[in-house]
Amino acid sequence: MVNGDYAYPSTMNVESVHRVAIPPPQPFLKSLKYSMKETFFPDDPLRKFKNQSASRKFVLALQHFLPILEWAPKYTIQFLKSDLIAGITIASLAIPQGISYAKLANLPPILGLYSSFIPPLIYAMMGSSRDLAVGTVAVGSLLMASMLGREVNPNENPKLFLHLAFTATFFAGALQLSLGLFRLGFIVDFLSHAAIVGFMGGAATVVCLQQLKSILGLEHFTHKADIVSVMSSVFTQTREWRWESAVLGCCFIFFLLVTRYISKQRPKLFWVSAMAPLTSVILGSLLVYLTHAEKHGVQVIGELKKGLNPPSATDLVFVSPYMGTAIKTGLIIGIIALAEGIAVGRSFAMFKNYHIDGNKEMIAFGTMNMLGSLTSCYLTTGPFSRSAVNYNAGCKTAASNIVMSIAVMLTLLFLTPLFHYTPLVVLAAIIVSAMLGLIDYQAAIHLWKIDKFDFLVCFSAYIGVVFGSVEIGLVIAVALSVLRVLLFVARPRTFVLGNIPNSSAYRNVEHYPNAHHVPGILILEIDAPIYFANASYLRERITRWIDEEEERLEGAGKTSLEYVIVDMTAVANIDTSGISMLEEFKKSVDRKGLQLVLVNPGSEVTKKLNKSKFLDEIGHKWLYVTVEEAVGVCSFMLGTHKANPKKDEPEGLNSV
Amino acid sequence: MVNGDYAYPSTMNVESVHRVAIPPPQPFLKSLKYSMKETFFPDDPLRKFKNQSASRKFVLALQHFLPILEWAPKYTIQFLKSDLIAGITIASLAIPQGISYAKLANLPPILGLYSSFIPPLIYAMMGSSRDLAVGTVAVGSLLMASMLGREVNPNENPKLFLHLAFTATFFAGALQLSLGLFRLGFIVDFLSHAAIVGFMGGAATVVCLQQLKSILGLEHFTHKADIVSVMSSVFTQTREWRWESAVLGCCFIFFLLVTRYISKQRPKLFWVSAMAPLTSVILGSLLVYLTHAEKHGVQVIGELKKGLNPPSATDLVFVSPYMGTAIKTGLIIGIIALAEGIAVGRSFAMFKNYHIDGNKEMIAFGTMNMLGSLTSCYLTTGPFSRSAVNYNAGCKTAASNIVMSIAVMLTLLFLTPLFHYTPLVVLAAIIVSAMLGLIDYQAAIHLWKIDKFDFLVCFSAYIGVVFGSVEIGLVIAVALSVLRVLLFVARPRTFVLGNIPNSSAYRNVEHYPNAHHVPGILILEIDAPIYFANASYLRERITRWIDEEEERLEGAGKTSLEYVIVDMTAVANIDTSGISMLEEFKKSVDRKGLQLVLVNPGSEVTKKLNKSKFLDEIGHKWLYVTVEEAVGVCSFMLGTHKANPKKDEPEGLNSV
Repeated sequence: MVNGDYAYPSTMNVESVHRVAIPPPQPFLKSLKYSMKETFFPDDPLRKFKNQSASRKFVLALQHFLPILEWAPKYTIQFLKSDLIAGITIASLAIPQGISYAKLANLPPILGLYSSFIPPLIYAMMGSSRDLAVGTVAVGSLLMASMLGREVNPNENPKLFLHLAFTATFFAGALQLSLGLFRLGFIVDFLSHAAIVGFMGGAATVVCLQQLKSILGLEHFTHKADIVSVMSSVFTQTREWRWESAVLGCCFIFFLLVTRYISKQRPKLFWVSAMAPLTSVILGSLLVYLTHAEKHGVQVIGELKKGLNPPSATDLVFVSPYMGTAIKTGLIIGIIALAEGIAVGRSFAMFKNYHIDGNKEMIAFGTMNMLGSLTSCYLTTGPFSRSAVNYNAGCKTAASNIVMSIAVMLTLLFLTPLFHYTPLVVLAAIIVSAMLGLIDYQAAIHLWKIDKFDFLVCFSAYIGVVFGSVEIGLVIAVALSVLRVLLFVARPRTFVLGNIPNSSAYRNVEHYPNAHHVPGILILEIDAPIYFANASYLRERITRWIDEEEERLEGAGKTSLEYVIVDMTAVANIDTSGISMLEEFKKSVDRKGLQLVLVNPGSEVTKKLNKSKFLDEIGHKWLYVTVEEAVGVCSFMLGTHKANPKKDEPEGLNSV
Repeated sequence: MVNGDYAYPSTMNVESVHRVAIPPPQPFLKSLKYSMKETFFPDDPLRKFKNQSASRKFVLALQHFLPILEWAPKYTIQFLKSDLIAGITIASLAIPQGISYAKLANLPPILGLYSSFIPPLIYAMMGSSRDLAVGTVAVGSLLMASMLGREVNPNENPKLFLHLAFTATFFAGALQLSLGLFRLGFIVDFLSHAAIVGFMGGAATVVCLQQLKSILGLEHFTHKADIVSVMSSVFTQTREWRWESAVLGCCFIFFLLVTRYISKQRPKLFWVSAMAPLTSVILGSLLVYLTHAEKHGVQVIGELKKGLNPPSATDLVFVSPYMGTAIKTGLIIGIIALAEGIAVGRSFAMFKNYHIDGNKEMIAFGTMNMLGSLTSCYLTTGPFSRSAVNYNAGCKTAASNIVMSIAVMLTLLFLTPLFHYTPLVVLAAIIVSAMLGLIDYQAAIHLWKIDKFDFLVCFSAYIGVVFGSVEIGLVIAVALSVLRVLLFVARPRTFVLGNIPNSSAYRNVEHYPNAHHVPGILILEIDAPIYFANASYLRERITRWIDEEEERLEGAGKTSLEYVIVDMTAVANIDTSGISMLEEFKKSVDRKGLQLVLVNPGSEVTKKLNKSKFLDEIGHKWLYVTVEEAVGVCSFMLGTHKANPKKDEPEGLNSV
């Protein structure tokens, strides 16, 4: 052993010093299996299948993929009553919103109704949320319109545009389904909450700006979505503004906001805001019908085809120049829709204390969008506003989606002519009032207060969306979020620890100013795994801690440093670059005549340090389970260490 | 307070329980400044300027950027002797290697000599390594040839190709310089050691395969570098193989490998392998000259222009179609050259126990390449082989580079005609023997033994380079390395802790099988920051720990669970998603009638939890500095907790 064989001081009970156990080697395949399970099956979905008969297993598997089989047998008349009310309420919201969002996506308005018919039925069978109300969403619609619009002009070639929309929806569904099947749901987690707040706020702002076209009754409008283009488009044609349209729009927005305010103040009056859009549509249509305003510059929806969804499987475009765009659009809108749907489902599940299976939800969303794309529907997910109304209306199960679906079906079969005179400005008002709720400035303030970096992510996403495009905002948000994770690992915190008085605990001296240094010993803590990305940083930083401590001690004329204790509790893992760093660090510490002591390396770290012979190099006796014990031994040694002439020590060490 | 105001048990000394301190709020700008400093100036380069006079500061600043001013005044005759020997030794290696690598880069051979003249002079003034020998490298040369070759055919348009090479070198230097100036050196750290081992091995394999052209004397050869193309190119023209060339090549490779083996066995005979390439060149040239083998299928270098580097500033291409390629090539070769140079410099600095400043090195490399590109040099860095020879030859300072530079200058002025008859096959043999040393299969085996993921990174990089291209290998290696960091954060480890007998320490029960559970209390440890990327995983995983523990206790008929203690020691940071997760988790634990207790959150985490009111929610009294104290209080409470009817508890908690 390098440092001479110190016997343990007789005053210390050797038995009382605990050894760091070296975990037994694990077969490679076993540990691979374990980490695969933790990575892909953290929720252990097969647990309920354990110790069950084959037939029971089959039933459980069916119930796993079709949760309706689980809850339908227990369905009661009481549930039906609640779901009926909730379903009719959300249908009254879904019909005008569906038409509005389809307009936003540059698609025929009827598609909004089609998309509120088939997808909710599928979700009701496969989804695990009891509160989610399925439908189209503004952000997804806008994103689709802007991405596909770059390839095909929706006014010049509406048919191709429509087909591309189906194709993009198909690929969005395929992505969602495969993420669910391959249990890659954690990809969605990389859209942090902060990123979503900023992104949604930005998208809502952009959507609102787009509505200026309808509200001001403009005929020509920019195809770009960023604030600069829209504002210059609006203000270069101030002469084209139609006051009739603008007045109508402002009245309806005011009406909708007032109803929302009422519902917010009194949750029992949820139906006031839920019914408001349909009321606006009816009022607006009546007004136009009676005043013939459609001949005076107020644009109306026009004819809607009666009848249920026509099949669209043959409309999918799988040919070269367009398919690339459809795939790209599908992937992005698929991820965005998934993030919104899952976040919404989780929030309500939390309120009601039940569990949502993220991967199962992805499979449900994926199936719903893939089948939807074959039946003339475009991208659907679980929008927040509609789900909130569903929740407030007291829905009990996914059956409320079935009720909504039936209501929409009846509308499609019999009521579409009623929408002929619905003015576009009312739809714009509905969109604006829904979008204003998505601009969550309070959440942004909260982020600023708690976590500045999260605020930066949020703010950059917002600015990216509003001044650039939806994709730019998304990329910025994800890149910053990932950068944060990388920076955390690249620049971990290191602390000097001190002893908390009347305690055996050693804690960060900056956090606990009353913690005191132990003479002759520097105790450091590293707060992250030691990886290639931080190995050289850590070496420099720790060396600087030692240099500073030595300077400080020299300045104060105190006991010079003899031991460096590194608390590895928070070092969760180490890679080969990290081990090399430790080896180098050990050598440089040796040269300074200091002894390196490690405390409490985790099982993974101990295993690797042992395999790489580093533990032999440092000496197993310089490895302790607690800082307390390490300090105890080192403090005692300090005497013996000092008795030897210090200058001899480094030489002996250098000969390693 | 939510959980009823338990008084502390009278048997416990309330004073003895330590409170988690809440760090005082820090002004935003101060903490921003601190993290900026840690991120960009971890080595605190301004420390030596503290408390110095203005003139001294100026001298120090000059010395900072031109380290030669620091060591030149202390230079002794003894140093000169050592540096002279080392410099002449590396010159004898540099001349044949330079010519070989220039051929590899599809550039005129003379460029290899030019590049060993100017850049070493610049490095000698600016570099902080004493052992680095500057010159061109095989991998960089190959990479440049393959990337530029896609845009311009070097045989059809050699002039443009040459100019593009200068331009790429210029941009490589600009990148290196700016990384150094903006202190972004940590970007290089993202090329992990494992990635470099695999990447270098792959590149060396590819370079060796390329040499089959010269060794077999083939005239037509594929322009691709992957193993499949090269092998099919070689084996489709077996009839074209020239045995004269092949025999000569094999003899020289054998000779070079034997000399390397000798030097490896006896480090004192370092000059045997250092002189071998020059000896081979002389022998080969003599042989060709005497036998007129150049007329029998043995290709020779041909005429080399006499004279020093011509200026090339006007050759740089800044026009549109080519500049993009030059920039892209420059960025990639710049990073690769930097990674090699810095890694080599660091290794030797470690052997000799002096310090290398990464950012300073980048500035030196950058200046050297930018000025090099203006004086007919192409990409240079600090190659491992040459630096090792320099080190073994006993160099003392960067002056050995100056000696080498002078030797190359003399060669350029007077000796270039001697290389007319040098056969290409000798150059190929020199490259092959140098490259075989770069295929570090032992390092790969070491990686496999210590860290399987590192091995995966290494192996994928190798396969990517050999079967795809150098860039593909690089992208795979970096992507996998980054994925590892992301996975670490996305899937942190969680452990159950138990009490180590005769100790106050609580440790992972899997690592310390003798640690025992405390009845009624589940102690968990989280091993990573709680971020958006892992918040939902952690919630699921912790919930599963609790469920499993409850099942286990139920099965064994033991005390049911009442407390969940979460040790936050290793949770270095938390973001707003993480805080939301904790809030949700608290609620779900409450509903189960369990009490959540947090132990030792770090200063950053405590601050954020306090700001977000989570500490008020959980109750400040459920926050402890050590697991021991938390267990002490909870164990005592277990009695009082149990005395209350358990079913009442959750209701009270739910009312929060």
